[in-house]
Amino acid sequence: MTKYGFLGLGIMGNAMATNLVNAGLDVTVWNRTREKCAPLVVLGARQGNSPAEVTGQCDITFAMVSDPAAASSLCFDSEGVLEGITPGKGYIDVSTVDPATVLRIAGAVKNKGGRFLEAPVSGSKKPAEDGTLVFLCGGDETLYQDAQPALQLMGKKSFYFENVGQGAQMKLVINMIMGTMMTAFGEGLAVGDKAGLKIVDILDVLTQGAVDNPMFRLKGLQMVQKNFSPAFPLKHMQKDMRLALQLGDELGQSLFTTGAANNWYIKARKGGGANDDFSAVFKYIADQF
Amino acid sequence: MTKYGFLGLGIMGNAMATNLVNAGLDVTVWNRTREKCAPLVVLGARQGNSPAEVTGQCDITFAMVSDPAAASSLCFDSEGVLEGITPGKGYIDVSTVDPATVLRIAGAVKNKGGRFLEAPVSGSKKPAEDGTLVFLCGGDETLYQDAQPALQLMGKKSFYFENVGQGAQMKLVINMIMGTMMTAFGEGLAVGDKAGLKIVDILDVLTQGAVDNPMFRLKGLQMVQKNFSPAFPLKHMQKDMRLALQLGDELGQSLFTTGAANNWYIKARKGGGANDDFSAVFKYIADQF
Amino acid sequence: MTKYGFLGLGIMGNAMATNLVNAGLDVTVWNRTREKCAPLVVLGARQGNSPAEVTGQCDITFAMVSDPAAASSLCFDSEGVLEGITPGKGYIDVSTVDPATVLRIAGAVKNKGGRFLEAPVSGSKKPAEDGTLVFLCGGDETLYQDAQPALQLMGKKSFYFENVGQGAQMKLVINMIMGTMMTAFGEGLAVGDKAGLKIVDILDVLTQGAVDNPMFRLKGLQMVQKNFSPAFPLKHMQKDMRLALQLGDELGQSLFTTGAANNWYIKARKGGGANDDFSAVFKYIADQF
Amino acid sequence: MTKYGFLGLGIMGNAMATNLVNAGLDVTVWNRTREKCAPLVVLGARQGNSPAEVTGQCDITFAMVSDPAAASSLCFDSEGVLEGITPGKGYIDVSTVDPATVLRIAGAVKNKGGRFLEAPVSGSKKPAEDGTLVFLCGGDETLYQDAQPALQLMGKKSFYFENVGQGAQMKLVINMIMGTMMTAFGEGLAVGDKAGLKIVDILDVLTQGAVDNPMFRLKGLQMVQKNFSPAFPLKHMQKDMRLALQLGDELGQSLFTTGAANNWYIKARKGGGANDDFSAVFKYIADQF
Repeated sequence: MTKYGFLGLGIMGNAMATNLVNAGLDVTVWNRTREKCAPLVVLGARQGNSPAEVTGQCDITFAMVSDPAAASSLCFDSEGVLEGITPGKGYIDVSTVDPATVLRIAGAVKNKGGRFLEAPVSGSKKPAEDGTLVFLCGGDETLYQDAQPALQLMGKKSFYFENVGQGAQMKLVINMIMGTMMTAFGEGLAVGDKAGLKIVDILDVLTQGAVDNPMFRLKGLQMVQKNFSPAFPLKHMQKDMRLALQLGDELGQSLFTTGAANNWYIKARKGGGANDDFSAVFKYIADQF
Repeated sequence: MTKYGFLGLGIMGNAMATNLVNAGLDVTVWNRTREKCAPLVVLGARQGNSPAEVTGQCDITFAMVSDPAAASSLCFDSEGVLEGITPGKGYIDVSTVDPATVLRIAGAVKNKGGRFLEAPVSGSKKPAEDGTLVFLCGGDETLYQDAQPALQLMGKKSFYFENVGQGAQMKLVINMIMGTMMTAFGEGLAVGDKAGLKIVDILDVLTQGAVDNPMFRLKGLQMVQKNFSPAFPLKHMQKDMRLALQLGDELGQSLFTTGAANNWYIKARKGGGANDDFSAVFKYIADQF
Repeated sequence: MTKYGFLGLGIMGNAMATNLVNAGLDVTVWNRTREKCAPLVVLGARQGNSPAEVTGQCDITFAMVSDPAAASSLCFDSEGVLEGITPGKGYIDVSTVDPATVLRIAGAVKNKGGRFLEAPVSGSKKPAEDGTLVFLCGGDETLYQDAQPALQLMGKKSFYFENVGQGAQMKLVINMIMGTMMTAFGEGLAVGDKAGLKIVDILDVLTQGAVDNPMFRLKGLQMVQKNFSPAFPLKHMQKDMRLALQLGDELGQSLFTTGAANNWYIKARKGGGANDDFSAVFKYIADQF
Repeated sequence: MTKYGFLGLGIMGNAMATNLVNAGLDVTVWNRTREKCAPLVVLGARQGNSPAEVTGQCDITFAMVSDPAAASSLCFDSEGVLEGITPGKGYIDVSTVDPATVLRIAGAVKNKGGRFLEAPVSGSKKPAEDGTLVFLCGGDETLYQDAQPALQLMGKKSFYFENVGQGAQMKLVINMIMGTMMTAFGEGLAVGDKAGLKIVDILDVLTQGAVDNPMFRLKGLQMVQKNFSPAFPLKHMQKDMRLALQLGDELGQSLFTTGAANNWYIKARKGGGANDDFSAVFKYIADQF
């Protein structure tokens, strides 16, 4: 039976690992703050003591951490992932990180004979819980095939691209569109509100038109209710916007709209909304607190 | 039998009037360039000689023209709508115009004893042809009720707001969101393309996620095919963006994202894309000609 | 002796009229709130009872009001300027208004045989007091020549352009650059401040370089002292930014930088800074209150 | 007599070292291509054989190289600066280097008991020749004091900040303001030009007002003449804008105006203007080629 490892049990990682454990897979979990492992151990997971140990004991190890610095640290620190990699081991980083970081990790893993797959996800808390994430994979195709049982438990669909870094880039493209749509949405609702229109009416009209989408439906209602409990924390969306803008700068693509949106997220992050859902950017757009 | 008038037979007006005529309603049509009436007359419409004549002979007259100047001219010029208005006559302007203009028209119609309803539409060429537009109505509620048979032939849904101007404002809110989503989409596709991702793959991933929407599906494919034949002409979207920004300015709402998007449309309009579909803004974002 | 009229005694108008009266010219003043005339009457001005009366009794009448609506109202209302215009009378509007409004006023004045000159000023309170304004004149060249004695008392320099509207456009171009420089300056100071640099040090370094200019020197010090008493009120700068953006939109010029700056001014205006100096936009950029 | 070293004799370094030698200081020079030392040796400089030798023989050594990679190499390579550092030795890097690199160099020098000062300059070729540069210094204050004789020969002014990195940050703040002023200027000239105003008239009016500054005077004329030969290459300005935006993002400062300006520079860089003067961004704003 394939042994799976899972490193990083935040909002996303916990939900994803739970789906693996509940399906009866052999899963060893690890998290920096050890207590977060307890609920999974109750469900049947093993407890790992370090990333190195988990990677060393498992065939395929997943990692889900919050940013490039954390992903690097997880891999390269003492007792980190790299120390557990031996020939044939599979390491799948499902975090969203910048291309440079993911290439560095991929190179180090391959250098020790391991197999590497980046697999950043599209989807946040609810899809993670429901096992309906979308995986954007780049790298070792044999690992992509071997990991199918786990990927299919955690997601509804996965895409495979040949090169490491393309998954991360695809993720950034998706999230920059999503993040900018959210500020466009917020600006529209805010100006409508100031004009005396009811936000629920605006939402109602939007559902009838060509731009109707699940995000507007779900987040729109939550924004009316001032419910900003985090499915996708604002600071993470802002990080993705920043990375997308850096990608555009590097490639010579002017991103005026995305750049403006990013500055709204920076304002919201600095203003106290870092850990709210990214839809909380609306409060800072509309000055409604 | 209620007599309907229809003024303005552009892309939208022609499709809408066709649905009325095909359903067997008594419809008198008029257009500045008279030849555009011919196909409708063939289908059974009457030919009107001036806006004043049409309004004077019909119970309820619809107007669909391209901008505030045209809407004003249609109403106030010699042999214009106003000359045909007598007590009880209904005038429904389904054009998208700014609140100031629509209030001036409404006041003038009511001043002559007429009933006025603004009813700007959400939806472009295809929904107009299919009779699946959405009407955003503000003004006289009896007229809103009396016009239901026609509104239901042309649209799938209509919303009623108490005050003239609210329909126009709702329309601007919807279109500013739509227009800004399009530049966000265009920037995402452009940076993805420069990064070596396939645009069809980006579209594929987008359909799996929270921002999946009919506009991205339809326009995305057309953008890949470089098909920018106009469903909603770019110059009209740019006009709506401009009006939305003016509304935000007036109401004290900062619109950084929408403002950036508008500048892309201005660049596209000036660059030769005025009469293309508004999705042609992509060419100017991506410098792909 | 030439009889001069002066309509509108706000911050600017009062200072300008004072320079005319103090130089011994024959000046009749009028203001909507009559009490503002008193100090000038004490200095030797005559009191006018209406714009029509002032224009009718004087050879050359200046007007300095706050926006296009006020300029229109001053001209076209009952007992307005137009009623006092007879052949040969000179009317010089030194307000900053949009080209459409100034053309309407010019046409009406010329229609009654009057001579019209637009002469919007560059410079705010201090130059108005010191008689060192710059006049950007467009229209009747004989009036431009006849008004030289007054223009030279109020300003250090005047420019003449052939067509009415070009003075207004030049003014908008100057002010859009000035307004955007101010938000660029504010963003620079704000990021430097957050980085731990002292704002006085930044100002000091700026004076040594290629962008050293009177505005940064004067306003920079006042910003450090949180002194935002209005020399040029923020709401007026925001109005000029808006008009400049409308001009750009009309002419097909994308103005991404200016558009972003305008949204900062809108935020500041709405947030309570409308009547502060336009440099108060810094507070809203830096979230320093 | 204090012994000075000077490493790097490009356009800037040669001019700066010449001023030191001409004033009679004891200067040892070194350059990767040895021939560039000859003119300075003729003037009285000593010839050094390696960075290590120069640093080892001199009390205070200046370095002026082109980028972070060159600065690192100069310090850390075999026979590099670091090998010559002994307790008390002073090393002053006047190159413009990113904060991470400068901190790494500073740490290494201090680790060997040396004293380090970053001193990036404001000013280009002409001020370097004239001895009118501005130094933005951060680091060891005793070294700053000891180096005064040399700094005063090469510059008209120097600023001292306590921490290494603050000089670099000050430089970014100055350049982000300068870069954004340039796009504001370009947008103003472009809209004025489209309105039919003469650009020379706009420049003339600007010189009369509160924003008159050397950059507008110099670059404005060159822009009219379409002379974009590089004093400060556009790609370097764009790099500084990018670094300033990253600093703002890190510190939580929204930079809407600067962000818009940066996107213009990206468009210009990609469009072919990378090696032109940064004022060439005007061509891309105005679509004038």
